[in-house]
Amino acid sequence: MVDKKTKDWSGCPVRFGMSQFGDKWSFLIIRDLMFKGRKYYHEFMEAGEGISTNILAARLSDLEANDIINKSKDPLKGSRFVYTLTQKGIELMPMMLAMMDWAEKYDAETEVPPEFINGLRSDPAKLQQEILDNLPK
Amino acid sequence: MVDKKTKDWSGCPVRFGMSQFGDKWSFLIIRDLMFKGRKYYHEFMEAGEGISTNILAARLSDLEANDIINKSKDPLKGSRFVYTLTQKGIELMPMMLAMMDWAEKYDAETEVPPEFINGLRSDPAKLQQEILDNLPK
Repeated sequence: MVDKKTKDWSGCPVRFGMSQFGDKWSFLIIRDLMFKGRKYYHEFMEAGEGISTNILAARLSDLEANDIINKSKDPLKGSRFVYTLTQKGIELMPMMLAMMDWAEKYDAETEVPPEFINGLRSDPAKLQQEILDNLPK
Repeated sequence: MVDKKTKDWSGCPVRFGMSQFGDKWSFLIIRDLMFKGRKYYHEFMEAGEGISTNILAARLSDLEANDIINKSKDPLKGSRFVYTLTQKGIELMPMMLAMMDWAEKYDAETEVPPEFINGLRSDPAKLQQEILDNLPK
């Protein structure tokens, strides 16, 4: 019985996850970095979800403190910062993909490109590698 | 390039996911139902996370409206309600397990029973079936 095995978890993994990226803005920032090629503050601002600048700054700061994203000077323009996922952040990919798979199934308005969702369902390891190969280094 | 394929998603699956269960309390309720054998209001209240009664009532109502959980009269005691996951809710399991796998790896304080985490990593389909078999019908 799963219940018996799990009811005494003192350090709950779900609670930990939520403490690390537990609101929708954090998820959307991770999505932008992981799947959309966005890496600059202004790109997160302009992603069309209506985040306010103080919330965005706070979430970026939290994600950086939790070692999920990395902030560094943009080699192309020293006055600008560039954000990338850390290894810990990259390893959220299976969770993000599982959520996308579920949403595509249950939301009529979710529009994921067919080649993406088919790739996810037929060969997730290959899709993950493709996404990984396209992340900024 | 993943970016090109995905940047035009008008109905974003991550945004949909967040609209459906997008705060930590919703995740903890889903966790309780999926892994901890909890199904009554008082059990969610007493889960030790410190949720307030008005937040709990609101989250249960949202999850029910989104068809992730089902609320029905308890066959054992007609004046009491029992909550169960719907099929849509059950299918959040891969996402929840992916989060738990990640948390177990990155949080020194997360304590998942070894047989659970080993099962998850060596034979996730078998573990999922075991969890499924133990859900209240």
